[in-house]
Amino acid sequence: MTSVLERLSARYEDDLNDLIAFLRIPSVSAQSQHRDDVARAARWLEEYLRRIGMNHARTLPTAGHPVVYAEWIDDPEKPTALLYGHYDVQPADPLELWETPPFEPDTREGRLYARGASDDKGQVMVHLAALGAWLAAEGRLPINVRVLIEGEEEIGSPSLEPLLRAHPELLRADFIVISDTTMFAEGLPTLCTGLRGIAVAEAHVTTAASDLHSGLFGGAAPNAVQVLCELIAACKGSDGKIRIPGFYDRVVEPTPQERAAYAALPFDEQQLMKSLGLPALAGEAEYTAFERTTIRPTFEVNGMWGGFTGEGSKTVIPQEARAKITCRLVPDQDPEEILELLADHLRRLCPPYARVELQRGAGARPWKASLEHPSTQAAIRALEATYGRRPALAPSGGSIPIVETLDRLTGAPMVLMGFADPGCNAHAPNEFFSLETFRTAREACARFWQEAAETF
Amino acid sequence: MTSVLERLSARYEDDLNDLIAFLRIPSVSAQSQHRDDVARAARWLEEYLRRIGMNHARTLPTAGHPVVYAEWIDDPEKPTALLYGHYDVQPADPLELWETPPFEPDTREGRLYARGASDDKGQVMVHLAALGAWLAAEGRLPINVRVLIEGEEEIGSPSLEPLLRAHPELLRADFIVISDTTMFAEGLPTLCTGLRGIAVAEAHVTTAASDLHSGLFGGAAPNAVQVLCELIAACKGSDGKIRIPGFYDRVVEPTPQERAAYAALPFDEQQLMKSLGLPALAGEAEYTAFERTTIRPTFEVNGMWGGFTGEGSKTVIPQEARAKITCRLVPDQDPEEILELLADHLRRLCPPYARVELQRGAGARPWKASLEHPSTQAAIRALEATYGRRPALAPSGGSIPIVETLDRLTGAPMVLMGFADPGCNAHAPNEFFSLETFRTAREACARFWQEAAETF
Repeated sequence: MTSVLERLSARYEDDLNDLIAFLRIPSVSAQSQHRDDVARAARWLEEYLRRIGMNHARTLPTAGHPVVYAEWIDDPEKPTALLYGHYDVQPADPLELWETPPFEPDTREGRLYARGASDDKGQVMVHLAALGAWLAAEGRLPINVRVLIEGEEEIGSPSLEPLLRAHPELLRADFIVISDTTMFAEGLPTLCTGLRGIAVAEAHVTTAASDLHSGLFGGAAPNAVQVLCELIAACKGSDGKIRIPGFYDRVVEPTPQERAAYAALPFDEQQLMKSLGLPALAGEAEYTAFERTTIRPTFEVNGMWGGFTGEGSKTVIPQEARAKITCRLVPDQDPEEILELLADHLRRLCPPYARVELQRGAGARPWKASLEHPSTQAAIRALEATYGRRPALAPSGGSIPIVETLDRLTGAPMVLMGFADPGCNAHAPNEFFSLETFRTAREACARFWQEAAETF
Repeated sequence: MTSVLERLSARYEDDLNDLIAFLRIPSVSAQSQHRDDVARAARWLEEYLRRIGMNHARTLPTAGHPVVYAEWIDDPEKPTALLYGHYDVQPADPLELWETPPFEPDTREGRLYARGASDDKGQVMVHLAALGAWLAAEGRLPINVRVLIEGEEEIGSPSLEPLLRAHPELLRADFIVISDTTMFAEGLPTLCTGLRGIAVAEAHVTTAASDLHSGLFGGAAPNAVQVLCELIAACKGSDGKIRIPGFYDRVVEPTPQERAAYAALPFDEQQLMKSLGLPALAGEAEYTAFERTTIRPTFEVNGMWGGFTGEGSKTVIPQEARAKITCRLVPDQDPEEILELLADHLRRLCPPYARVELQRGAGARPWKASLEHPSTQAAIRALEATYGRRPALAPSGGSIPIVETLDRLTGAPMVLMGFADPGCNAHAPNEFFSLETFRTAREACARFWQEAAETF
């Protein structure tokens, strides 16, 4: 292990230059004018994997952008890890807001600025540098590792699942490691221990055959917007409680230990209110704002419209109204079941003079880390050894589609070890990665494989 | 009186030809390309008034289209009536839906088809023909009459009130007669005995400083659309009851006699439901659908929007939502007071994490006919004598801005004697006026002046 850490220490400038070379390739998956750049980034990565000594490095074609794969499978008796990452990046617009060009990496004030610096090229290269140091210093990895780096994460990974269904052997692993999340606070090593799922729907209320004159028919004609408002109000109270019968039935309550751990996280409600420009927060009073935004489910109208929305006044009774609805879900809620409950609730409450339909979108199940699993314990120890402090074990309120996909395809435990700064400007101008984190995270990753080998 | 009726009988063809000539002038007030046509219609009318023997016929210029005025003031001891009408018409679009061109009047199947046939040139000419017959047959009118025909009714009469404020003498009258409404059913003579007023507002809810990510903030961040839905649902129940405290305080309940009269009107709820494509109507169960749409006040969201309304899904928490609201009002509600009550209600219910503002539009007070007034009694007798049946005394649920304006400016009783067929296609293609009604309504109007003279 010492030799590996020495090697990393000696390689810092070289590893940084490798990352800078990788960041110079504008591999924007969403923009067709960058199609060749995306392919070039895949080739660069394949070559890099070969160079550091990984075996079977290859670029797997898909219907979209290719997936880069390599492995180092030494001893089938040893545990096997799958390392997932992505080499594609978000578009860089608006360009005029960047202080230095997005694809000309610039180091200043201890940071490396470039599109993809944090999301996800920087975090991928931290891992690959650690693998390279192991192979150079020890000629081996402590456990078997598969590396799978895709090129479509920023456009929803449309080609990954078909590829993995066609090649299930690529997924054969005891656990999965992903570094594509942020630290809870600057310099605080963090494992993301949970993600919310999501249920997606659009409610559509209709009443009369056409919009009606409010003078001639007002008082007897049903108003579709009014009906939809009543239905929405009946789905959630101003106390933040969701009123859909059965909605909370499968929600797992946090244990006292978990709640104590959440309370110890550096989460500042006052600062949150200030940053949102609010005199008060909404939601369930008996949970902290952190809990409300991570381990509690939500009901949210993302958009709603009906009737006359132009300038001035039009005395019309709308015959139609629509609301886009998403629910964030927590273990053990199921998106399909939640939509069933919602549809039942709306149908039951809909008055006889109206009709309500629920169009269902694609959902995602919530995810929770297996805290007792050796891989998680290995990550905790590796981060603690590197940073001299216990990592934060923090659930996140968002959904990461790829986590849900890999969970669904493999059921394997996942370690979400995030190294991006919480203010890293991912998806925004002036994205950066901390140079100090680049140095230390490589060590944490190198230690992780050793710890994993010892724990299993 | 007999001589007047004989004169009308003899003049039928001539009167009809006068109306047809009037209808040939495309006096569309809303379209600038018809500006000269509107002026031509005013000159035609002035000339016609002079020809039938009215005095001081003149065209009064305004900032917009002119007002045509004439009078026959014989004896200052006699009562004076003001006859109001309008010579402008709605645009004729969509032209392709007219069976014959809108400004080439066509008689077929007992009807005269043309833009303005019912609204309002036909109803104006019915009155003027009656005045002409009186002056030709008797050399006098039984009472004093002022005639005021404007050219901007279809665009909201913007120039009329300034003109009348500058020339209050034009309004000096004991009562006002307007024929610009419909009959309750085909062939059923009708007095409109009430109109609802209106209060107009837009509610604007804001929460955080920007739209927020529903994964990161959902559960603690307030949702402006949700708040607005809760506020709207708190303004009206699914029982049709408006829940704004004080809203009903000034509402005058119908007397048992009035309710009996309404129940006797040929109003078919089943037919209404069928025409609206509804299995049930909305509203207050203890009132008939007729009452709910005429003598009961309403709360209506005319349009509402907030958040993401494009295609697909966007997991955003909206920071802003708006609803356009109108309330139809009945005696003795006051639009400003109602908006005050609404604003108070919304403020009181708005949670601490949101702000609500109410932008107020221009309203109108409700109007009720003075049934005991001699002018109303004269109209009832004139209609009964002409049609051999009691006229329907029916309130309407709409608002007629000019009635509200004249009521506000004069406080004088008004007779709303409508001759248009309920299916006359006013404002729509293939507008028509019944030829039989054209014949008989002239007689009713001629009798009306006689009855008015005898009643006062």
